[in-house]
Amino acid sequence: MRTTSIYGYRYGVSLEAKAALQEIRDAVEIELAGFLTEQSDYLKTISSDLTPVAQALSSFLLDSGKRLRPLFAYAGCLSAGCNPQTPTIKAMASLELLQACALIHDDLMDGSDTRRGKPSIHRHFESMHVQDELEGFAPAYGLAAAVLLGDLALVWSNQMLNAAELTFKQFQDVMPIHDEMRVELMAGQFLDIHEQTQKTTDLPRSQKIARYKSGKYTIERPLHIGAALSGKQSPELLKALSDYGLPLGEAFQYRDDLMGVFGEPSVTGKPAGDDLREGKRTVLIALTDAACTESMREESKKYFGAPDLDSQGISILQEIIITSGAKEKLELMIDQLTDQALRAAEDELIAQAAHPLLLELAKIATKRST
Amino acid sequence: MRTTSIYGYRYGVSLEAKAALQEIRDAVEIELAGFLTEQSDYLKTISSDLTPVAQALSSFLLDSGKRLRPLFAYAGCLSAGCNPQTPTIKAMASLELLQACALIHDDLMDGSDTRRGKPSIHRHFESMHVQDELEGFAPAYGLAAAVLLGDLALVWSNQMLNAAELTFKQFQDVMPIHDEMRVELMAGQFLDIHEQTQKTTDLPRSQKIARYKSGKYTIERPLHIGAALSGKQSPELLKALSDYGLPLGEAFQYRDDLMGVFGEPSVTGKPAGDDLREGKRTVLIALTDAACTESMREESKKYFGAPDLDSQGISILQEIIITSGAKEKLELMIDQLTDQALRAAEDELIAQAAHPLLLELAKIATKRST
Repeated sequence: MRTTSIYGYRYGVSLEAKAALQEIRDAVEIELAGFLTEQSDYLKTISSDLTPVAQALSSFLLDSGKRLRPLFAYAGCLSAGCNPQTPTIKAMASLELLQACALIHDDLMDGSDTRRGKPSIHRHFESMHVQDELEGFAPAYGLAAAVLLGDLALVWSNQMLNAAELTFKQFQDVMPIHDEMRVELMAGQFLDIHEQTQKTTDLPRSQKIARYKSGKYTIERPLHIGAALSGKQSPELLKALSDYGLPLGEAFQYRDDLMGVFGEPSVTGKPAGDDLREGKRTVLIALTDAACTESMREESKKYFGAPDLDSQGISILQEIIITSGAKEKLELMIDQLTDQALRAAEDELIAQAAHPLLLELAKIATKRST
Repeated sequence: MRTTSIYGYRYGVSLEAKAALQEIRDAVEIELAGFLTEQSDYLKTISSDLTPVAQALSSFLLDSGKRLRPLFAYAGCLSAGCNPQTPTIKAMASLELLQACALIHDDLMDGSDTRRGKPSIHRHFESMHVQDELEGFAPAYGLAAAVLLGDLALVWSNQMLNAAELTFKQFQDVMPIHDEMRVELMAGQFLDIHEQTQKTTDLPRSQKIARYKSGKYTIERPLHIGAALSGKQSPELLKALSDYGLPLGEAFQYRDDLMGVFGEPSVTGKPAGDDLREGKRTVLIALTDAACTESMREESKKYFGAPDLDSQGISILQEIIITSGAKEKLELMIDQLTDQALRAAEDELIAQAAHPLLLELAKIATKRST
């Protein structure tokens, strides 16, 4: 019988959960570093001209990152009552390489100059082209390098998973979920770029994008993958994990949307108001659009999506978003979705050992300052 | 004991081999069409906004293509003395989806407007953006769509392979080769774009690019994958297949290089002199550079790689390439490499049933008019 409620922990701190997550983060780091060293050495046997490729990907992957997807996979495994061994940790770590592909290609598509406070991959190679005074057009070189490094990260992710020495059963259980997750990711990304081309905002459309881009890809599917790796998943357990993962995933994306508009560059690793400059049609913008006055809408049109948007324009747009009540409303939605997730995490199908982790992860995914 | 020599067949026609290849081509087509229908239906359950994605990829994959990689995989399987069943055919067909990723991303990186006589994927989505009067910048939409459709094709390729219902042994035998092939492809592609940024041409460098981009990816590795799928591969057989595949793969790339400069648009599906306009540093260009006079080199600099290169400029460059003797030399290299491949195909480790196919495939890969 359950003696404590995870929900009651919400504002507490579980030092054990924090320590357990850090342990997994460290294990993921070690596996990633090992794989990248091996693959970088291999690339160099093909040609020394591939050294910048190996260096850029290693630096991109090893210098930072919250390792959210491996951590959710770990929690999924634990939820099924299983404590993961090395092959399983390798399989989980491979999700970081998939995420590297998503970020590298995302920055290219969005034309973002920075990622985690450093130049994005296309800008990095563009700068190398200028610095080394290479022939041709530097931005074209940057574009091509970002396309290929993203592709390589996607292939490496798969290679790391294939080489993790999973059992055939683990493989058969994991692969359909893993493949569906990757299709959902690409579908969500396409819907996102397609949304930016629409004349009107639409709350349900934006919510669907948040669900596919983040709810499923960042949280629900990694949990499922972890459960599948345990060999003990059942449709009921996967459903229980979805009931936690989907609302939390939406909340995670909404926090990200708020950070993209109000976040400090020192925290986001991106310039202030980056999403406003890119004209990202997020749920926050759909809420603003639905609630603001005609004059606010006219005013906002002058600034939203302007490539040369400056700090004054950002302030005006931020003010409109706040005045419309959209910011407050989204904060409330984040709280409600997180509560919903935490209630779902209490499901008795989820092994009790996983509860403090699911709570801690919910905090990490939705807190205001990271 | 061997009674006929495959090498002796060189200028003959094997109707049986042609028919066998057509049969495999048809089987691959059926598997691809089935997979694409299933996946397109799935995408539409996510959102009707994904219909253009499904349509564009299906049209890209089903309207044309020589199916070279599945055919070489089939020949590899046959070389090991195995006649492939449906799961194996599915695994072979998945290579076409990988190739779709390579082509879509290649066209984006090269800024190519057409592929097989139709708009390239980025141009297709760019045109849709203009036609439907969507918001934002049409080329950015085209770029993002091409990045994501290429990514999706890469993921689908893997999904089709994972879902082919191979045995665990097939899986374990195939995956390391398949993963290495994909890394080699991305490495070759990077070396190719990097080569375009160099101040000087270099024959060994260009040859290495041809080997990785084509020799290995198009021919050697598909043969190995086919052999691995048979469950009967040995290091010796893989070596014998490499001895055939690597020279043939180089010859294939050189034929492609010649077509990129001298090919008719009706045959190549690309504008005349496309590689000259893009300034592609191929083996043909390295040979020209090494053999031409200083004045020819000066003259060529005016035109090579000029984005607005017209038919007169193309003629001048073609003339320089011919006069330098590079075209003739490359034709000779193609002949020699093909002969080398055909001699290697006679290896007694390669099952005799595969011989006529290896011969026919060598013709298809290197002939002048497709």
